[in-house]
Amino acid sequence: MAEPFSFRLIATDGGARCGEITTPHGKVATPTFMPVGTQASVKGLAPEAVRGTGADIVLANTYHLMLRPGAERIAELGGLHTFMNWVNPILTDSGGFQVMSLAELRKIEERCVTFRSHLDGAMFELSPERAVEIQALLGADIAMQLDECIKLPAAPSEIERAMRLSLRWAERSNRAFEEQSRARDGYALFGIVQGGDDPRLRLESARALIDIGFQGYAIGGLAVGESAEVMRRMIDETAPALPLDRPRYLMGVGTPEDILEAVARGIDMFDCVLPTRNGRHGVAFTRHGPIVLKNARHASDPRPLDEASSCPAARDYSRAYLHHLVKSGELLGGSLLSVINVAYYQELTARIRAAIVAGRFAEFQAETKAGWARGDLPPQ
Amino acid sequence: MAEPFSFRLIATDGGARCGEITTPHGKVATPTFMPVGTQASVKGLAPEAVRGTGADIVLANTYHLMLRPGAERIAELGGLHTFMNWVNPILTDSGGFQVMSLAELRKIEERCVTFRSHLDGAMFELSPERAVEIQALLGADIAMQLDECIKLPAAPSEIERAMRLSLRWAERSNRAFEEQSRARDGYALFGIVQGGDDPRLRLESARALIDIGFQGYAIGGLAVGESAEVMRRMIDETAPALPLDRPRYLMGVGTPEDILEAVARGIDMFDCVLPTRNGRHGVAFTRHGPIVLKNARHASDPRPLDEASSCPAARDYSRAYLHHLVKSGELLGGSLLSVINVAYYQELTARIRAAIVAGRFAEFQAETKAGWARGDLPPQ
Repeated sequence: MAEPFSFRLIATDGGARCGEITTPHGKVATPTFMPVGTQASVKGLAPEAVRGTGADIVLANTYHLMLRPGAERIAELGGLHTFMNWVNPILTDSGGFQVMSLAELRKIEERCVTFRSHLDGAMFELSPERAVEIQALLGADIAMQLDECIKLPAAPSEIERAMRLSLRWAERSNRAFEEQSRARDGYALFGIVQGGDDPRLRLESARALIDIGFQGYAIGGLAVGESAEVMRRMIDETAPALPLDRPRYLMGVGTPEDILEAVARGIDMFDCVLPTRNGRHGVAFTRHGPIVLKNARHASDPRPLDEASSCPAARDYSRAYLHHLVKSGELLGGSLLSVINVAYYQELTARIRAAIVAGRFAEFQAETKAGWARGDLPPQ
Repeated sequence: MAEPFSFRLIATDGGARCGEITTPHGKVATPTFMPVGTQASVKGLAPEAVRGTGADIVLANTYHLMLRPGAERIAELGGLHTFMNWVNPILTDSGGFQVMSLAELRKIEERCVTFRSHLDGAMFELSPERAVEIQALLGADIAMQLDECIKLPAAPSEIERAMRLSLRWAERSNRAFEEQSRARDGYALFGIVQGGDDPRLRLESARALIDIGFQGYAIGGLAVGESAEVMRRMIDETAPALPLDRPRYLMGVGTPEDILEAVARGIDMFDCVLPTRNGRHGVAFTRHGPIVLKNARHASDPRPLDEASSCPAARDYSRAYLHHLVKSGELLGGSLLSVINVAYYQELTARIRAAIVAGRFAEFQAETKAGWARGDLPPQ
């Protein structure tokens, strides 16, 4: 019998936390990085390759999947785990973020958001209740409440309006989730803190969500145009208000440095398209910082990207070959660099967890940043 | 110490032959299908995935690699095996076919062909001697002579002129190969029979090549616009003239049916871009014939492509998921279907070999064609 959702804290070091999430499809060591499988596929990677990087959990996008192939269809096919051949945990977003950024003619009302599909122009409605229902049809181990995420900078009144609407939707999401008995099945629903760049609104949002009571709490509406400094300050303001015994998820973040900084501030979960998107664009994340494989300096370099990497693709191919694949537009270049990057993010979070347990997270953070700052190896 | 090139015939059944090629990088069971790694990558597949399909040997294209990244560069990087991380045998073509089909402003003269790169307009020369040299720099286990391959239909005088030029180039290729001591290193050079759709010219070409003496013989200039019937007749005319103790390679062929027909006529080796190209275009080769995954009939079909396939990707993903990936333009769709198709070709040649050894190739051929003719499973 699958175990119900739970979270336990294993160790803390300053603000940084190491823990373990249990879900009906297995355990997730935190801090964790969730590769993004937008359309039920982590772009360019087979599920066994994703798992091979050390990923415990992937994210899939409700907005994309509700449009194609449709939530009911995925449910008939046995749910998202079966559909995408991924046996481990899955978190789905609520669709809200992408309705706001991708859909056409969207109209946000109290009851729901109405929008036109960017694929074929068909009209759809997404309410808090339907978002919960869709995520149940998908079979997500962790579902997210529907929220309204606005771009920054924005007018204070607009930030406040969206935050309050998101809170009312949080309430409705939670009620729908309990009525659908998903909670009793051991699945989880997370609330999402909004409030833009206003610490007062962030705190108010967090407290109201805690009053409703969720299995975990996300910080949303960041990495949407604000500075890194604002992002860090908002985490500083919000995280201490969140319950110690629930996981904290910073949505849509970010660079390796963002992850280090957010872990230091008490964040447990991350997702971002950067490792796969940058991989497809020929950029590798490494302990020497980002490496642009297209650069001519790699054309004759027989060295691997990083001989000390835990990822075979980072050790088994020369920089010259990766350069050649990228220059030649070969699909293999994008998929090798995607797997290298996802593996780098997994290696980073694994080392973060070990450093927290060892009580040396601050040193690890300093060493890691120093490695990035030194930059790539000198040319041979 | 790596073993030198050799070929032994294991069994025959009618015209069909089962054998084994030994090369400095390992053995190749024949009949064999060589996946095409045009730019030092079998499109969309990592080398371990290619090997996982059962492929013993891959083909790489001299024309593409001489332009980018350059033969001398690959040699400095340790040769093509190291460059593309493929430890098994490699056959390279001579570049002739693609100079004729891709390069701009090509000028064919007795000494060499001069052409403009389709990548950057730079001028290049390719002579029989340089083609042998390039393939030695790449480190190909099996190299091909430079030939002139013309499209069919063509005027008889043009076919004869190109065949005679190819013969003179065969002579020069062989001399260059021996002078470069590649023969003594245990590497192989194959001659290429030309002669278009003229049986008399084909036979003359084959006999002249045998007089020169090669480690293997290819039939070139087919699958270039002629009918399947003409192709089969040309093989019927040529193969019996070739030495029994040397492998026979039908270049650029073909469909699964082409392979069955050519094996029946005594061919041992094949290469073709079809399995990977069709895979990227959403078409799967199966024992039920080709299946177009984009078709709506697959949208809700939970069955795998072929539960009896030896390829995990053909068993582990539903048709509905493959349909979704193809419709969504996900890279994973192309790579899963490519590996499924290459695996199907490998399974086909493995079964062909077993049937020949068992003395039941004709029955196998009939059963296999009947399976294709029955078509895909009925919709569920």
